[in-house]
Amino acid sequence: MKIAFREASRSDIARLVALLADDELGATREDNSKPLNPRYLNAFDAIDKDPNNELIIVERADDLVGMMQLTFIPYLTHTGSWRCLIEGVRVARSHRGKGAGRRMIEWAIERARERRCGIVQLTSDKQRPEALRFYRSLGFNATHEDFKLKN
Amino acid sequence: MKIAFREASRSDIARLVALLADDELGATREDNSKPLNPRYLNAFDAIDKDPNNELIIVERADDLVGMMQLTFIPYLTHTGSWRCLIEGVRVARSHRGKGAGRRMIEWAIERARERRCGIVQLTSDKQRPEALRFYRSLGFNATHEDFKLKN
Repeated sequence: MKIAFREASRSDIARLVALLADDELGATREDNSKPLNPRYLNAFDAIDKDPNNELIIVERADDLVGMMQLTFIPYLTHTGSWRCLIEGVRVARSHRGKGAGRRMIEWAIERARERRCGIVQLTSDKQRPEALRFYRSLGFNATHEDFKLKN
Repeated sequence: MKIAFREASRSDIARLVALLADDELGATREDNSKPLNPRYLNAFDAIDKDPNNELIIVERADDLVGMMQLTFIPYLTHTGSWRCLIEGVRVARSHRGKGAGRRMIEWAIERARERRCGIVQLTSDKQRPEALRFYRSLGFNATHEDFKLKN
């Protein structure tokens, strides 16, 4: 499978939102109505203008395979090192089970290396055991608890 | 205890590094030698120029109480919402057990609200059970595993 990676553009937002909504957890928290909720456009513009955020779209020809967001964060800790946070990883239903997720994370790790990030970090919902196994199989270690608070 | 919060400046870096190194995990990964490792200065400059990163220093008079870093991240997910990531939370030994950590996290939650972040997120090492209890007591939920990969 030949897949291509690029940064998303404003004209991609509608199909990215449709992908986010096509998920049992996403269906409860996304708004797939038309016209597009302007919050998505505002969020995209904030991501797009920030050199430390990259919203990545993955395609095979014109077909949407998946998406993810990379955030590169400078820290004083670990002797002043950069870290890459991966978030919002989604693979389209029709492309699941064919290794696309693995290639996406491998691509993200390589991109993090280009950005000189010593640590790659992501969180995964404990309700998704197959995702937890997947990240462990890629060499990630669950040394930390992730805590979230609705604000 | 009257404590004050502000963004760190370049002249604070040496004492912040000393605080990071004064910790059983930090001692193995920080460089507290003089002159200061330039990696810390480079990291500080990257944080300082990024409007979505705030390195917060907490003081009582001129005494260093603690530090933490806040990162504000725009996402398409959750109908285009911002998230606040808290990282590198440290309280100086002489100020532990007096409620400073709680006041710091409460301050961070309020700052996240000012920045319109719908979720506040942090990770905590599973080797620090008292820290895990502390974050639970503040209302954080460990719904996700945090995965890290050394790159």
